[in-house]
Amino acid sequence: MKTLVITFLLFVNTTTFSQTSDEAVIKQIFDFALSKGQSYEMLWDLTTNVGSRFSGSPGAAAGVEWSRNVMEQLAFDSVWMQPVMVPHWVRGEKETGRILSKRVGTVQVNVCALGGSVGTGKSGISANVVEVKNLDELKALGTKGVQGKIVFFNRPMDPTKINTFGGYGGAVDQRANGASEAAKYGAVAALIRSMGSNLEDYPHTGGMRYAPNIAKIPAISISTRHAELLSKTLKDEKDLLFYIESHSELLPDVPSFNVIGEIKGSEFPDEIIVVGGHLDSWDLGQGAHDDGAGCVQSIEVLRLFKTMGYKPKRTIRAVMFMNEENGLRGGIKYAEQAEKKKEKHIAAIESDRGGFVPRGFTVPTDEKAKERVRSWKPLLEPYGLSDFSQEGGGADIGPLANQGVALLGFLPDSQRYFNYHHTAEDTIDKVDKRELELGAASMAAMVYLIDKYGLK
Amino acid sequence: MKTLVITFLLFVNTTTFSQTSDEAVIKQIFDFALSKGQSYEMLWDLTTNVGSRFSGSPGAAAGVEWSRNVMEQLAFDSVWMQPVMVPHWVRGEKETGRILSKRVGTVQVNVCALGGSVGTGKSGISANVVEVKNLDELKALGTKGVQGKIVFFNRPMDPTKINTFGGYGGAVDQRANGASEAAKYGAVAALIRSMGSNLEDYPHTGGMRYAPNIAKIPAISISTRHAELLSKTLKDEKDLLFYIESHSELLPDVPSFNVIGEIKGSEFPDEIIVVGGHLDSWDLGQGAHDDGAGCVQSIEVLRLFKTMGYKPKRTIRAVMFMNEENGLRGGIKYAEQAEKKKEKHIAAIESDRGGFVPRGFTVPTDEKAKERVRSWKPLLEPYGLSDFSQEGGGADIGPLANQGVALLGFLPDSQRYFNYHHTAEDTIDKVDKRELELGAASMAAMVYLIDKYGLK
Repeated sequence: MKTLVITFLLFVNTTTFSQTSDEAVIKQIFDFALSKGQSYEMLWDLTTNVGSRFSGSPGAAAGVEWSRNVMEQLAFDSVWMQPVMVPHWVRGEKETGRILSKRVGTVQVNVCALGGSVGTGKSGISANVVEVKNLDELKALGTKGVQGKIVFFNRPMDPTKINTFGGYGGAVDQRANGASEAAKYGAVAALIRSMGSNLEDYPHTGGMRYAPNIAKIPAISISTRHAELLSKTLKDEKDLLFYIESHSELLPDVPSFNVIGEIKGSEFPDEIIVVGGHLDSWDLGQGAHDDGAGCVQSIEVLRLFKTMGYKPKRTIRAVMFMNEENGLRGGIKYAEQAEKKKEKHIAAIESDRGGFVPRGFTVPTDEKAKERVRSWKPLLEPYGLSDFSQEGGGADIGPLANQGVALLGFLPDSQRYFNYHHTAEDTIDKVDKRELELGAASMAAMVYLIDKYGLK
Repeated sequence: MKTLVITFLLFVNTTTFSQTSDEAVIKQIFDFALSKGQSYEMLWDLTTNVGSRFSGSPGAAAGVEWSRNVMEQLAFDSVWMQPVMVPHWVRGEKETGRILSKRVGTVQVNVCALGGSVGTGKSGISANVVEVKNLDELKALGTKGVQGKIVFFNRPMDPTKINTFGGYGGAVDQRANGASEAAKYGAVAALIRSMGSNLEDYPHTGGMRYAPNIAKIPAISISTRHAELLSKTLKDEKDLLFYIESHSELLPDVPSFNVIGEIKGSEFPDEIIVVGGHLDSWDLGQGAHDDGAGCVQSIEVLRLFKTMGYKPKRTIRAVMFMNEENGLRGGIKYAEQAEKKKEKHIAAIESDRGGFVPRGFTVPTDEKAKERVRSWKPLLEPYGLSDFSQEGGGADIGPLANQGVALLGFLPDSQRYFNYHHTAEDTIDKVDKRELELGAASMAAMVYLIDKYGLK
């Protein structure tokens, strides 16, 4: 009966049917995600029963097991683990920051070591503090102004950037390079204002890099509120001391895994569409928005297709990448293996901007693929997906670019992301069920369209 | 120097300058709101120092004082109070709901009386429960199936509606009319599944109406999770008893006020643009999203103009309406007075959908005004305002429609609104600072455009 109806419609007007059909399938995807979705339940389980999943930690190993088990239980066509060596940095037990003031006494402030930082040694570091807003100010101070001191990088994220990633991008050089830049002039440590949108009490961690042939000094993040306090205190007392203690250290690399599940394509099984997030998180919090959300949304894309009885033409792969946060080893390994095995990836979509309400997608750089994706806007706009203005994908899928893979990124609303990013506050209670589900459905809708029409 | 540059630009291309100028002003509005905004600080103060503001309560009176003080301190050109009589319903001290089961014993469940409901009397009500999903099922049961029982309305909000107001609109008849519909068939009380998007532990209150000449029976809301529990328990035990106790009652009307502040127009002082929210809230929670957000955003529109040194051509009025939740007396009074005083309102914008991230505006029904508002989309889209598809304004400004006033509504994202709406969870910690500020800036941008270009 169903077949007859479809044949009749095709006979009447192929174009109209084709369009109606896409609308109907996409509506079904969203209906299923919102009424029979499992992304939130999966994220609850991952965040509360596994918790944080920092590369090399027992939590990361548990996350690998969790991902494999979940995808096996969902009976994807194949589920496997892809070995990869990852860095193994450990925070150590105790982190302390104190303003030692002659005027107001000792004030405990909230700090945490940045990922990759060396520790201070058992006796900690006490030194004077010099505040700068940027590298130019640091250069102007020179060795004379910096030698033996703690350099305090205190440039806030620009709040007037509507997309908070713009504010982040404009401030994160302090976190990434601040320590080595300060060490060039003889600083003993770098203290960096947290990358947060608001005044908050908790510090944000995140990756940092040491430049070659420069002394490695501790790189410590201070909460935005305490950065303000320190800055005010310094105005009245330039020679105050600041005490830092951290026992972080970098241990030898350890083995870990990307975890991959796939549904085999019915017509073009050798053409692969990747949908992914990164399984590792920072050690603080639960890695709920960053990036548990992207992981469960990726699994949910495949689960939704199975639940709907939709058989993709191409092979759809959910990839949980390991070690995005402090090395990108999983993303690099995945691309290496894809090249080695001569796999044909036609597209990869990453979700790594939190489980917030959908706004759109970042689009491929290739002109034809970009226009194809943008031509689908009328189908996606009813679901809040209207921003297709930015190009690029995500960090983990980036290494696939050399193989000519079209890269896209799921684009949720950015306003709340840097409230939680890389902090102890990135927990499941900050994730809204419907927002997360809408994101999973958005990704499934995009995969459906790419699977059906391709990008060439 | 500045004047010279502007003159030069005007000479070159008036149209381009005019457009650039709008873009620049709107950017300045958003920059100020995000970097020097006060909406969040005002909302913090209102919610934590005043708290809930239910019509006729001491909290509402304190809210009136708060609004007047804040607008006076901001030195608006005029600030005044508009007297209005409001209903005075009180919840009473104790609200109890219990499943009395022979199989599982007594189970305490989370309930609250709906606004306007009569109480149960001191001894409460114990009765059998009959579950229905809608009025048709109720009619089918008839007096025989309903007499002497508690009718349990248990139709959830449809989760597949992308705009959650659609799900709310499809379920809220149970809350508004359930009690009288059930009483027609001899029910002793109505128990109504809370209007919430998710499974939650807390009940949602809200307005209900008694039909004339029908016995008034208690109307009680039960949390969505406990509605599920009751439904499951009923499947195994149709003759379980349910116990309700509530001491709510409707007292005589009491005096209250709308609170109004304005900046006088420089060119057309007799033409008024209203920007408003409602000052009253339900008695549970703090009325943070509903509608403290709309109040502080409205005040912030005028404050931003003053801070920027922008002098509107028309008079801009911030109106804190009283009694939206259970009577709309403030909105009705405001329109009455406007008509009586022959005031010329050219537009009114309400914010009463929470302090969430901006999505767009609802537009006036008048074709010309609608097209004018939609023509501004390119100016507003960079700030996430892309949805101008729906018509209408808000409840409080609705009574102005008869005077031909163009009505608009600020449209924030709807996904999280019904997590908190009318509950003890509607508190300041559920409001994101940037999201609230972006809403205030969106409203200011719209007022700026209407003030500059009019709607005719």
